[in-house]
Amino acid sequence: MTAPAPASVHVPLARAAILAVGSEMLTASKIDTNSLFITGELNALGIDVVFKSVVGDDRDELTAAVRAAVARVPLVICCGGLGPTDDDLTREVVAEVLGRALHEDPTITERLRARFQTRFKREMPEINRRQAMVPEGAVVLENPTGSAPGLWIDHQDGARGGDGGGTVLLLPGPPRELKPMMAALVAGPLRARAAGVVLLRQVIKVAGRIESEVEEQMRPLYARWREWPVPIEPTILAALGQIELHLSARHASADVAAATLRDATTDVLAVLGADVFSTDGSSLEAVVGQRLAERGLTIALAESCTGGLLASRLTDVPGSSRYVERGVVTYSNRAKTELLGVPEAMIAAHGAVSEPVAEAMAAGVRARASVDVGIGVTGIAGPDGGSAEKPVGTVAIAVALPESSPEARQVRLFRFAGEREQVKFQASQAALDMLRRLLPPA
Amino acid sequence: MTAPAPASVHVPLARAAILAVGSEMLTASKIDTNSLFITGELNALGIDVVFKSVVGDDRDELTAAVRAAVARVPLVICCGGLGPTDDDLTREVVAEVLGRALHEDPTITERLRARFQTRFKREMPEINRRQAMVPEGAVVLENPTGSAPGLWIDHQDGARGGDGGGTVLLLPGPPRELKPMMAALVAGPLRARAAGVVLLRQVIKVAGRIESEVEEQMRPLYARWREWPVPIEPTILAALGQIELHLSARHASADVAAATLRDATTDVLAVLGADVFSTDGSSLEAVVGQRLAERGLTIALAESCTGGLLASRLTDVPGSSRYVERGVVTYSNRAKTELLGVPEAMIAAHGAVSEPVAEAMAAGVRARASVDVGIGVTGIAGPDGGSAEKPVGTVAIAVALPESSPEARQVRLFRFAGEREQVKFQASQAALDMLRRLLPPA
Repeated sequence: MTAPAPASVHVPLARAAILAVGSEMLTASKIDTNSLFITGELNALGIDVVFKSVVGDDRDELTAAVRAAVARVPLVICCGGLGPTDDDLTREVVAEVLGRALHEDPTITERLRARFQTRFKREMPEINRRQAMVPEGAVVLENPTGSAPGLWIDHQDGARGGDGGGTVLLLPGPPRELKPMMAALVAGPLRARAAGVVLLRQVIKVAGRIESEVEEQMRPLYARWREWPVPIEPTILAALGQIELHLSARHASADVAAATLRDATTDVLAVLGADVFSTDGSSLEAVVGQRLAERGLTIALAESCTGGLLASRLTDVPGSSRYVERGVVTYSNRAKTELLGVPEAMIAAHGAVSEPVAEAMAAGVRARASVDVGIGVTGIAGPDGGSAEKPVGTVAIAVALPESSPEARQVRLFRFAGEREQVKFQASQAALDMLRRLLPPA
Repeated sequence: MTAPAPASVHVPLARAAILAVGSEMLTASKIDTNSLFITGELNALGIDVVFKSVVGDDRDELTAAVRAAVARVPLVICCGGLGPTDDDLTREVVAEVLGRALHEDPTITERLRARFQTRFKREMPEINRRQAMVPEGAVVLENPTGSAPGLWIDHQDGARGGDGGGTVLLLPGPPRELKPMMAALVAGPLRARAAGVVLLRQVIKVAGRIESEVEEQMRPLYARWREWPVPIEPTILAALGQIELHLSARHASADVAAATLRDATTDVLAVLGADVFSTDGSSLEAVVGQRLAERGLTIALAESCTGGLLASRLTDVPGSSRYVERGVVTYSNRAKTELLGVPEAMIAAHGAVSEPVAEAMAAGVRARASVDVGIGVTGIAGPDGGSAEKPVGTVAIAVALPESSPEARQVRLFRFAGEREQVKFQASQAALDMLRRLLPPA
């Protein structure tokens, strides 16, 4: 990526704001997710995001938002609104707020025309010339995966009310265009302009615990970490079926920040032990997959209430075909009997949602698939099908391992809260976590 | 909910801004989703959200954000930052921006103390008295599911620079507390204060088409709709494997707005025909489920590359146990042969990812499960396993219906772009859409 022309005054870019532009993100069904990716990239350079806003395709609101952002932080990243239509206002509004004239850049126009010929086999509509408009003094950022180029604009004193200017970046909204451009900026010109402090984050994931308990156990660590030469900033987040601890450390040296995070992670592991399933951001299905692969074990799944979700999560992991042999979704009782050999009499005696049936499912799929590990899940996802004795959310999960294992069989009965999809997810999470604990790290 | 004390000047609340307060929402892993719910509720009252922002637990940034929002719109909703700790600044900052003193409300303090006794069987920590602080002139909004009460503050002229005052609402961040409070406000005082215009939205979902094509076909409709007495505002959104058209109409009468949306929907159906799969927000799996249920058909799934995702999506629909009999995830070739009767020689001759194998999977699962409909999906989800002839993303999908159907067998070969999970999703979407088209509405 072309390095931006040096401006005569450079403010270190330590604080940033993100503006997502597009009316669709102000509806009840669509959310800005680009800012998550951008935040991760900026944090890696020690740049904090101090606020972010979503603004519609509205000239007045966008002008107010850009003006406010430029006045408050040295780095403003605008995402979206670079398309060719009348709705796409970001270029014009930023140029106006920064007091720059817009000119058509003939190199961009030619590139756009060529792109239309090559990719779409047709003439570029004249409306697309709008994407070739460049504010005075802006550096054009190539967009290898789309038509709208990005723009890098350094501005001076004036716009920020006297404390030294800053930078406004205009990037396209589609993630497949934004991501490579942002990555190139972070590798190059943004890194060169960052303040030189690195902010590192570590995510520790915990299963089988409730948030308030974990928080209580963490509190003494939080207090200790505050006194460290490089203090740790902790956040705790409860997601469905798991809790995440986000630890961050800032230092001029990435090595020092990383070493501090390692020490803090050791503290967490000493307190939470085997409830921690990942310290590197890995998902539970990836951790389970790795444990299976390390041991050369194969697995087969027998699912009722999770309806294939457990198999789908395990097969989300690249390379999972090495260990996932098969899955069966035995939604009907007949399928449980035909495909897994669960005796009809057992279903009649205990009900389809019961520990004996879960065990028979796990053992049945393991034997029929001739694999090492079998899992059986049967439950009531709701909204219908619950009873006083077995309410919606009741799920029986069984794991069958090779006879030689320290614990060859395990079955547990859970009662999950929430709606159908939440029950399904928590059941798949509990099944993965049971297996993980039965296969401790080598 | 107590109606707020009437302020002497009421501005109709037609435009709103949402401020989500909390530093965790400025990290790379956590997003504000409350604003989606709030937006839906406000839109139902004809109130537009013109911007939304996320601000950290930082006094300066929060002050700037509240000040800017109050100056631009008559209704500002702040979510979060009402807890008892030093980080919780929303009450103080809003009081300061509006020039109101804060006083402890002894009724709230007593309610908090009682809540601690009843729920937690202990004394309220003194720190929680912070949650009883109320800005002068504010109306306290009861929080039936949490400790932090909400606040409704009407303000006059001054804060908005002379155009008539407005309202600031402070609501707690946890969704289980926010949602009932917001619903009560919408049913009561917010409705009373809204401008009396209703904004209705309709979502039309389309499968099997690309965005630019749909956009081109829609353009003449957009032009026509602009001339209607109640104009339609359209937005087009491309999601993975589907395109959504969001149409909105505003009018004093909800009936008139709804009738206009019905006319616009008729226009869309005339142009896009069977590519439209839903006009009421239903997911593709729900539409397919409904078609199966209406006809009394049962279904079984045979999946390879989708790894159970197709079964999981179909079983996300409440009541799906009426038609989903079983699924098999035949990840290995052995499983394809054992569970579905796909001949080894066929796999050897054509490869596991081929149209004949997909057909044999669909027919095999249909016959063995004794159901009406069988689907077979086999493909290369990546990142490994691709070849020049069959690159990553190649997926064969077959549907087998009863012999009596107008089209009893269908098989198609797709090439999807994207990463592993995207290929899986698009393959499940294409399979559902093939079946939907074979089962047209009665």
